[in-house]
Amino acid sequence: MSDVMVGAADLTGGALTLETGFLGNIPSDVAQTLLGRVRTSCDPVLHMAIESLGEPLATMAGYHLGWWNSDRSEVAGSSGKFIRAALVCAVAAACGGDAVDAVLVAAAVELVHNFTLLHDDVMDGDTTRRGRPTVWSVWGVDEAILLGDALHALAIRILTDLRDHSVALEAIMRLEASCLDLCVGQLEDCSFEGHQEVTVDDYLHMAGRKTAALMGCCCALGALSANADDPTIAALERFGYELGLAFQCVDDLIGIWGDPGVTGKPAGNDLARRKATLPVVAALNSKSEAAIELAALYQSSVAMTATDIDRAAALIEVAGGRLAVQRCADEQIQAAVAALPDAVRTQDLIALSELICRRER
Amino acid sequence: MSDVMVGAADLTGGALTLETGFLGNIPSDVAQTLLGRVRTSCDPVLHMAIESLGEPLATMAGYHLGWWNSDRSEVAGSSGKFIRAALVCAVAAACGGDAVDAVLVAAAVELVHNFTLLHDDVMDGDTTRRGRPTVWSVWGVDEAILLGDALHALAIRILTDLRDHSVALEAIMRLEASCLDLCVGQLEDCSFEGHQEVTVDDYLHMAGRKTAALMGCCCALGALSANADDPTIAALERFGYELGLAFQCVDDLIGIWGDPGVTGKPAGNDLARRKATLPVVAALNSKSEAAIELAALYQSSVAMTATDIDRAAALIEVAGGRLAVQRCADEQIQAAVAALPDAVRTQDLIALSELICRRER
Repeated sequence: MSDVMVGAADLTGGALTLETGFLGNIPSDVAQTLLGRVRTSCDPVLHMAIESLGEPLATMAGYHLGWWNSDRSEVAGSSGKFIRAALVCAVAAACGGDAVDAVLVAAAVELVHNFTLLHDDVMDGDTTRRGRPTVWSVWGVDEAILLGDALHALAIRILTDLRDHSVALEAIMRLEASCLDLCVGQLEDCSFEGHQEVTVDDYLHMAGRKTAALMGCCCALGALSANADDPTIAALERFGYELGLAFQCVDDLIGIWGDPGVTGKPAGNDLARRKATLPVVAALNSKSEAAIELAALYQSSVAMTATDIDRAAALIEVAGGRLAVQRCADEQIQAAVAALPDAVRTQDLIALSELICRRER
Repeated sequence: MSDVMVGAADLTGGALTLETGFLGNIPSDVAQTLLGRVRTSCDPVLHMAIESLGEPLATMAGYHLGWWNSDRSEVAGSSGKFIRAALVCAVAAACGGDAVDAVLVAAAVELVHNFTLLHDDVMDGDTTRRGRPTVWSVWGVDEAILLGDALHALAIRILTDLRDHSVALEAIMRLEASCLDLCVGQLEDCSFEGHQEVTVDDYLHMAGRKTAALMGCCCALGALSANADDPTIAALERFGYELGLAFQCVDDLIGIWGDPGVTGKPAGNDLARRKATLPVVAALNSKSEAAIELAALYQSSVAMTATDIDRAAALIEVAGGRLAVQRCADEQIQAAVAALPDAVRTQDLIALSELICRRER
């Protein structure tokens, strides 16, 4: 077991033993270095775009992105992970593309991702993101809806700046197709709440639209911006899509067993909200005694206590939900890497895949 | 006074005497014929786009657009006015453009307009639109937010189908710029509620972004799709912008004195919600005795009774708010028509300008 795997095991109480050995021995700082570099490259584009919104939207957007506090004072908290932007840039580099265009695309996908986060927080009623109050809980629901709409528009405007017009149009078409997938996926996710009969396949289909489609799009756009051929674009889209499913699996594990100090969200957040995430769906579908007790906890309309949350987490584990999701994430990562054509199997892309398995937030 | 003006006078209890005589004697059915023709042209594009959303979004979208009831049964109510689509098509025709491209643009602007209506209804808490329950009140707030996001994405996807790539990119860039204006304008509009010190200029500035920018964009895009030169595009954008300000003035008059049977909204809807629309802003700024009484009615936190609403409407009239807005609409229509280059001053565009003055909903 590599050093990386010890880190992963620590994170989730010793049980997130994803089989990442096959990824090879990538130094653990490769992905972090890439994320930092991509952030530095995207920052000027994002800042210019955000400031063009004028006040109060610019302040709200910068707050949401973790640039400053609500009064623009220096921030202590953390910003987003930038994984989607890093996928764009790493794929573009792997395909021999130009960094200038890749950075525009990367900024655009981060804006789309953040537009959906703003609206998701309103819909889910989440009061905390990345350890800080959500935009709607600081400025109001109307403001968060409008800021989301504005970031959506801003993302597309940035893509119109790509130098090759046919690449720009193709990128816009693909990014909006992902937005449509996201909307449908989020709608399905909302419809799952309170329904006990959701299957693992239903869930993965929903996650495919809600999470994986945009990651697939990020990789396709990275390749497109580098003028890659259609088969390469399709292979990289597949890579990103499978990676996205793994990402969602890990997200769901973190939503139950993550460390609040690291995730920036309350402990057992998803359980407290009785979200039908994959470990829960897998556990309920086991039809075991633990599943029956878990179903009763989920059907009750009484607010979950800390004891209930601990009990639910234990029941999911006993019912095999945790292990099933770990295996699913592992399979998806393997499928992702298998989809990567040899010519673009770079250390950065493998490092990002590994990061997605062992991330803590 | 023409027949048309008698119609206009009837609509608002005899007082909406906009000076449209200078527009010439356009038969009153020219605009209606145009609207019908544009609707027929756009329908196939819109239907194909909407059905591509899949269920349940397609049913929700078609319900919102007035195509069917919530169960897809035949609808008795009315659909949108299609004024924006008609502006695109009439401008494109005036510039000698191709109808195929104009119809794509027209469908896109209608989708953007409807995306903003869906979100506005959520923000304003409006339960009725076009005489029927709003989408959020039938399906839920989350669903209405997501449908709005989806229509936004769909609008841009349609523009990527324009045959000339540089026209498509320019159209996307301009339409998203209008979306950003809309967001900022809607945010300003929300911020006006409960503030007594809003001036007429503040209001017109807000309306410029919330309403006029998109109408200006519609006209610019119609000209762009017809490959018009830059000065013509700019002049037509100006025409649409001024028309948009007139449109907002008339909208605000209808919001107070409109016939609920025609508008599809409750009588005195804007007053019941204590909205700071232009007649109210103009009245409050008169500093008259009526203004003081009106301010007291607006500052109270008690729900408006039917008597209060009637009293508020009367006070606005006494304080000169109604007349001021009629004059403002009149000036804007004159400015709009003055902005029209002779070469594109077609009967259809004049008829649309007139329709905007004398519309009842």
